Amino acid sequence: MDAANCEQACSLVSKSYISQGQQALAKRHRLIKTLLSSRRLPEQGWDEPTIEAFVQDCALMDSNNFLDNVGAGEREGRVACPLVARQHYHLAHGIGRSGDIAAEQPKAAGSSLLAKMTMLLATDALRVAGLQDLGSVTVLPLATGMAMTMTLLAIKAGRPRDARYVIWSRIDQKTCLKAITAAGLEPVVVELQQRGDELCTDVQAIEQGIERLGSDAIAAVVTTTSCFAPRASDDVVAVARLCATSGVPHLINNAYGIQSSSICRDITAAWRKGRVDAFVSSTDKNFMVPVGGALVAEGSKLRGLVAAVNKTYPGRASVSVHLDLLMTLLHWGSQGWQKVLKEREELYPHMKQVLEGVASRHGQRVLHTPGNPISLAMTLDQGALEQLQDYTFIGSMLWARCVSGTRVVPKAKQQTVAGIPFTGYGSHTSAYPHVYMTAAAALGGSTSEADVFGARVDKCLLEVVAKAGGTVNGGNKQECMNS
Amino acid sequence: MDAANCEQACSLVSKSYISQGQQALAKRHRLIKTLLSSRRLPEQGWDEPTIEAFVQDCALMDSNNFLDNVGAGEREGRVACPLVARQHYHLAHGIGRSGDIAAEQPKAAGSSLLAKMTMLLATDALRVAGLQDLGSVTVLPLATGMAMTMTLLAIKAGRPRDARYVIWSRIDQKTCLKAITAAGLEPVVVELQQRGDELCTDVQAIEQGIERLGSDAIAAVVTTTSCFAPRASDDVVAVARLCATSGVPHLINNAYGIQSSSICRDITAAWRKGRVDAFVSSTDKNFMVPVGGALVAEGSKLRGLVAAVNKTYPGRASVSVHLDLLMTLLHWGSQGWQKVLKEREELYPHMKQVLEGVASRHGQRVLHTPGNPISLAMTLDQGALEQLQDYTFIGSMLWARCVSGTRVVPKAKQQTVAGIPFTGYGSHTSAYPHVYMTAAAALGGSTSEADVFGARVDKCLLEVVAKAGGTVNGGNKQECMNS
Amino acid sequence: MDAANCEQACSLVSKSYISQGQQALAKRHRLIKTLLSSRRLPEQGWDEPTIEAFVQDCALMDSNNFLDNVGAGEREGRVACPLVARQHYHLAHGIGRSGDIAAEQPKAAGSSLLAKMTMLLATDALRVAGLQDLGSVTVLPLATGMAMTMTLLAIKAGRPRDARYVIWSRIDQKTCLKAITAAGLEPVVVELQQRGDELCTDVQAIEQGIERLGSDAIAAVVTTTSCFAPRASDDVVAVARLCATSGVPHLINNAYGIQSSSICRDITAAWRKGRVDAFVSSTDKNFMVPVGGALVAEGSKLRGLVAAVNKTYPGRASVSVHLDLLMTLLHWGSQGWQKVLKEREELYPHMKQVLEGVASRHGQRVLHTPGNPISLAMTLDQGALEQLQDYTFIGSMLWARCVSGTRVVPKAKQQTVAGIPFTGYGSHTSAYPHVYMTAAAALGGSTSEADVFGARVDKCLLEVVAKAGGTVNGGNKQECMNS
Amino acid sequence: MDAANCEQACSLVSKSYISQGQQALAKRHRLIKTLLSSRRLPEQGWDEPTIEAFVQDCALMDSNNFLDNVGAGEREGRVACPLVARQHYHLAHGIGRSGDIAAEQPKAAGSSLLAKMTMLLATDALRVAGLQDLGSVTVLPLATGMAMTMTLLAIKAGRPRDARYVIWSRIDQKTCLKAITAAGLEPVVVELQQRGDELCTDVQAIEQGIERLGSDAIAAVVTTTSCFAPRASDDVVAVARLCATSGVPHLINNAYGIQSSSICRDITAAWRKGRVDAFVSSTDKNFMVPVGGALVAEGSKLRGLVAAVNKTYPGRASVSVHLDLLMTLLHWGSQGWQKVLKEREELYPHMKQVLEGVASRHGQRVLHTPGNPISLAMTLDQGALEQLQDYTFIGSMLWARCVSGTRVVPKAKQQTVAGIPFTGYGSHTSAYPHVYMTAAAALGGSTSEADVFGARVDKCLLEVVAKAGGTVNGGNKQECMNS
Repeated sequence: MDAANCEQACSLVSKSYISQGQQALAKRHRLIKTLLSSRRLPEQGWDEPTIEAFVQDCALMDSNNFLDNVGAGEREGRVACPLVARQHYHLAHGIGRSGDIAAEQPKAAGSSLLAKMTMLLATDALRVAGLQDLGSVTVLPLATGMAMTMTLLAIKAGRPRDARYVIWSRIDQKTCLKAITAAGLEPVVVELQQRGDELCTDVQAIEQGIERLGSDAIAAVVTTTSCFAPRASDDVVAVARLCATSGVPHLINNAYGIQSSSICRDITAAWRKGRVDAFVSSTDKNFMVPVGGALVAEGSKLRGLVAAVNKTYPGRASVSVHLDLLMTLLHWGSQGWQKVLKEREELYPHMKQVLEGVASRHGQRVLHTPGNPISLAMTLDQGALEQLQDYTFIGSMLWARCVSGTRVVPKAKQQTVAGIPFTGYGSHTSAYPHVYMTAAAALGGSTSEADVFGARVDKCLLEVVAKAGGTVNGGNKQECMNS
Repeated sequence: MDAANCEQACSLVSKSYISQGQQALAKRHRLIKTLLSSRRLPEQGWDEPTIEAFVQDCALMDSNNFLDNVGAGEREGRVACPLVARQHYHLAHGIGRSGDIAAEQPKAAGSSLLAKMTMLLATDALRVAGLQDLGSVTVLPLATGMAMTMTLLAIKAGRPRDARYVIWSRIDQKTCLKAITAAGLEPVVVELQQRGDELCTDVQAIEQGIERLGSDAIAAVVTTTSCFAPRASDDVVAVARLCATSGVPHLINNAYGIQSSSICRDITAAWRKGRVDAFVSSTDKNFMVPVGGALVAEGSKLRGLVAAVNKTYPGRASVSVHLDLLMTLLHWGSQGWQKVLKEREELYPHMKQVLEGVASRHGQRVLHTPGNPISLAMTLDQGALEQLQDYTFIGSMLWARCVSGTRVVPKAKQQTVAGIPFTGYGSHTSAYPHVYMTAAAALGGSTSEADVFGARVDKCLLEVVAKAGGTVNGGNKQECMNS
Repeated sequence: MDAANCEQACSLVSKSYISQGQQALAKRHRLIKTLLSSRRLPEQGWDEPTIEAFVQDCALMDSNNFLDNVGAGEREGRVACPLVARQHYHLAHGIGRSGDIAAEQPKAAGSSLLAKMTMLLATDALRVAGLQDLGSVTVLPLATGMAMTMTLLAIKAGRPRDARYVIWSRIDQKTCLKAITAAGLEPVVVELQQRGDELCTDVQAIEQGIERLGSDAIAAVVTTTSCFAPRASDDVVAVARLCATSGVPHLINNAYGIQSSSICRDITAAWRKGRVDAFVSSTDKNFMVPVGGALVAEGSKLRGLVAAVNKTYPGRASVSVHLDLLMTLLHWGSQGWQKVLKEREELYPHMKQVLEGVASRHGQRVLHTPGNPISLAMTLDQGALEQLQDYTFIGSMLWARCVSGTRVVPKAKQQTVAGIPFTGYGSHTSAYPHVYMTAAAALGGSTSEADVFGARVDKCLLEVVAKAGGTVNGGNKQECMNS
Repeated sequence: MDAANCEQACSLVSKSYISQGQQALAKRHRLIKTLLSSRRLPEQGWDEPTIEAFVQDCALMDSNNFLDNVGAGEREGRVACPLVARQHYHLAHGIGRSGDIAAEQPKAAGSSLLAKMTMLLATDALRVAGLQDLGSVTVLPLATGMAMTMTLLAIKAGRPRDARYVIWSRIDQKTCLKAITAAGLEPVVVELQQRGDELCTDVQAIEQGIERLGSDAIAAVVTTTSCFAPRASDDVVAVARLCATSGVPHLINNAYGIQSSSICRDITAAWRKGRVDAFVSSTDKNFMVPVGGALVAEGSKLRGLVAAVNKTYPGRASVSVHLDLLMTLLHWGSQGWQKVLKEREELYPHMKQVLEGVASRHGQRVLHTPGNPISLAMTLDQGALEQLQDYTFIGSMLWARCVSGTRVVPKAKQQTVAGIPFTGYGSHTSAYPHVYMTAAAALGGSTSEADVFGARVDKCLLEVVAKAGGTVNGGNKQECMNS
């Protein structure tokens, strides 16, 4: 209903009513105009009709949706199943060109616009979250690990041919390790240092590693921020300084760190004071979209890697991840995004309190891990639980009681991952002195959910103790699913 | 409405009516049961309600959709924007585990089931298309080029450390080349041989390449089937024999070849008679889904690469590509899929006839390329057109007239791609004797569309000739968009 | 994406691509403009995105969707359930004002526009179907019977106070009779005349009825066109002439007659040559939308009743019926609508042939009813079936075999409807000489469906005959639902 | 995914994961089972997937959605436009039979079940809202006024033939009056009594009216509860007593009174202590669904009218209104419904306070109308506003500033409605001593909205006063729409 159409409509419905309707439409068009000109999150989130109107109009700007288009190529964006077409708002051509995933796709002006806008809003969202001095940012339709692999491939392409090692501050999460080997690189594990309850970066060992192997043999140092307690976020500032000195690229695995203002602060400090080539973050963990995307971002000081990553991606890619992120950011607006961030920051002390309550009732304690702003850990091997032989069933009991996301970490588990043998796998160190369980104060969680979580853990531990002499059966699911 | 609920309903609505309704529901449940037990395409396509019922039920089997679930992890499948949730049927957890993209995701039984079923139906669809002796097949949420890169990384991991070359039968499509360099490998270009109008695989040159570099230095030979005329589909049987003899992996870039029965026959022959490690195909080009996915398939004789590729992917991935493919295959059923394949086979002679008509009216000719079952090419440099200085504007004229997908290929264009300088780039050879345009008989195209295509090309060439002395303006879009 | 927004977009994506996208959007806007100015069915049906864009824009012109609107009334179009809002494209305010269902609703410019446009397109669709000299047409969110009641109430308001009779040419369909009594009027039944197999209007008896009761005591004469064979469409021309002479209103129950060109021709002749105040038709039966709406239309000669009906409706009404009809008409366009009409005309001889085939195989015959262009009837009481005691179970056998819509009509059934006792109820006459079943060649049916229908009837009759001596069980549904 | 299908699925995905998914599905099935057996609002609202699963399953139980169904009737529920089918969840057959809108529809077991359940939940929702001793309740796909007409027609059918008057306690809302005349009845206006600021039922005048006309000449007395201040809710208890004594039916126009606990209390008292045949309420005004439906409810003491209304409706009707109401009630559950009711009760004092604030700043006062629990009125003709000649523009100024739903009521307006001349139309009485504006504390409104409302009224009155000497232009919309 553009102006010409509204004018026509006035011959059918009173002009004064149509005019007011037209002004209402104009208001929405202005929201879109402001978006396109400011290239920032709208202050307030958009309502669904505005989001959909924008996406639909963009879709109609792609050639597969041109009325009268005739396709004579091998890829014309034809979609066979109407349900599939609807789900994707008739977007079919994907984004990027053979050469560059961030390049415009000539057949798809609308998709190109959506992708560009997603990148701009994601950049703004990072700023709002606390990252300063940002350089380029790209959104990849690849999960975090695969995005790490792509970024390492791009790094490697700029390193000496024999640079095949990656110095890696240990984090017992398979994806991060496999991301390195998938890129054809060899991880060199640097163990963490235990300080009190907490496991911290051994900066000196990293330094020694670089010296031992020589800069030219090293593709990158990989650190990790967001992780399970009692591991702390790596000391990215110290490592960044080291990398600056030694001329070695530094990639930060920041999987779900955007949600933490302190991690954002640390990364900002790191790329101000030292060398950070880029960080990689998950879109689903940080922006509550379905699994499937990642961000790669660089600081303003050291630029180039993001562009290199974009140019590494061969072929077009799905626009779906971009669309999810774009719609979510428009849905939130700046205020909504700040609100969920704030709620998360407030969830952490609440979750800690909940866990401390449970711990005190069962003779356990919450590990002291001030260096981890997201994850918390509570011992499971003290008091009445000390006598247990096996702890893993506690995890499955909780899962059967509809508690997801906790991990019960035993001691001294041997496991080989990506060809590397680990001791104490799961605990990030070879001999952590406790069995413990973890819980996260993650984006989108609520305090009431945390309370229910506490109550279920409580009940579960009571059961464990009660049955301690007999058989405690984690598989007795029927009962709890019904409760 | 399970049996218990239908029984309850009988106290509200007459039993005989409810019973008939219940039987109708049961019929749909049987369709699903048959799918799960046969693991093949349903004979007839499903209607939308059955497809959606299956997908929705699966979604509700994922933990993020459990009623009463409490999440204490960092990734709980929470979706912030209701529009995004709906678009994805509330599927949020993705597929795969850190270790393996084809592995079950414990938090997501439903998504795991959907992914598994997609793989099985895709395998059956390949069989229906004409591929025999299939081994494993995987669906990757990565576009074709990126899937090639992943597959090459997996191949490389099994090769000697110094195997860094890829012998590559020239195809002037950037993605294929960049897929090699993105994997950190070095392409060794093998030029094609012109036979008549057609450009064919120089098997001898490939053999010489292997000998010259030595097997151990070679990661793989990459051939291409589907391509623009006048390039023919590579002689994959001969190359497969060569690779078998020399012990070099052989990867086929079969981007949109599944749609051609003759290419399927060739690949079957190749892995029966020689060595084919896998082929990679696009899901969008072969199955009419939005851009974003690829298949990697191996023969039954030489197994292992598909599993290796699955294990190479680090982290979970989006389920969106699987879902699109699954829904499309269920929508078609075996009969629907056979029908679109058959229509494509029939489109080829029709498109050829259309082009020959245009050619005869303008003193051109359709190049004789029997080795390419999908793409056709028509000269543009004969008769009245001979005198043109520049040909590329014909392409933009057609695009402005809503004809997409044709390519006008000039002579002797110099271009450097992925660091390699090419002469005659776009024509797959350094000195093709003609300027020509291409058109494809691709899946989903219709004969009526081909007729309109012919008419527009005709009109366009008439204009070109008319204005030949004056200015021919390809940018005069307004006029034609309106026509 | 208006012009200003496209201009902004050019700073993000190349101007040439955006321009082409903008032209594509403009093309769709022109479709809408043509609709608004021509007020006729578009020549070709619209695709889904254009339909939805039009409806969504209209919805945003309603005050409940204004950004920043503040409601201080008792009815502000707030919708509590997001699913409900989506289903209705956020349309909530309904149409009409207290005074008139066809009046503009000030709070809902968009809904008003949709309603107006629906009326205009419905009028055009009637023209295309063959109705000429049309006056006003209204769409009511009331099913046919209720719309008949409303129309009779409006007629009655213009008649002498004591005009309480409705002369009614018998049609054994409850709704039509109850529509009269619901309006507080008394039906005077005029029996039909049997001519050969066919049951025809007894014009003379109607004339006598008018004379006997006196014009001033009669609210209206009600005739029926579309009906089950062997009843013929009433002789609306003769009755119209009678009503013109006697000054009595004439209302035609044209429930599903729009789909028949011959009925449209008859009605046109009737209001050209005599008196027709209006006809009432179902939207679902004639336009394949869900049950719930009706059209009331008048000829150009005698105007006023449609406006009176509109003014009779107290309060606002749902826009849902209008929306369904509008979307369907836009989906079809003029060509699509003509196509379904043509297919129906062709279905009639096909269905007749199918029935004749079945009849010949079972010693039955198809009744000769040239005056009914939609419904057909086949005897069931000859040959091997002659001996049956009860026939009704044949209907339930067919229903259990997933054949819906047939009626098996026994002889001499006594039934009281709306307080009036009938003999031979169901057969439109007190003593029809045959037991028979009916089948319709209705809009949306296909010849292949007719073939399956024939086969199932065939099989069913074979079974009946086979079991004729024993127990034939129509309730054995399980078996047939599975077949 | 029934049990058999889950078992099959276990051969594809680990049994333990599938089992947990199956239990999750079972939980949702149990929600449905509880609904069907309890026939009450679920305690907690359902999430969208459960609502949709229930509706979709019901839809698949209708014969138009049977796989393999063959239709040979004139109405087979075929839907031409896929968009329309989707919007209605493929429900097409409507509800009711020729004889009775509440009867089961044999072709549509699912729709019948949905309709039945809607009626049951609506009944429960009335109970929760405060209505006790309920008899039957029906949901009609007719707006309030039309439902009043239907109910009056049903009442009339049970009255002596000459009962043609309706004694009507004046309410200046056109729909209510037209509902009477549309039924062919004659309204006898009984003026209200002013008591203080408030306009109250003149019970004595009603009594005199009954006496004057005689019971047998009267079809019904119609009272109104929910209305604009300063009119109070009618004294339904006194009128009910009167009707019981005189044997005259009593119909309550309770358009939006369900939302008020005090009105619910009054109606309960009325049908306990006297005669109430039924009340009619709007579904959109009381349950926040789109316009289009109404409830008719009776008490347990005097039963029969609801059944008579159901039997009066000729033909099937749309299921859409039922579906909207059902989905909304399931979305809320009992707790959600109680919450919106409670919020409304709390909104009233807040809105009053807001208006009092505005009034005090402008020398006006809020009229004292304790007998109206929903609507409030504030004078506009005192202090600085006293000198205004015309007041109506204040209404359009507010409307232009995106304030909808207020009414500015002038003094002594002459208007003829449904043939009856009124003085002071709009103010419910011939000579109300004030010009005033109204505002409602209606369901779904929020206190923050009320605050914005107050601020806009404030600003608007300031403007009015400022320009009092010059021209105040209510039509200057552009400016304010932008503000």
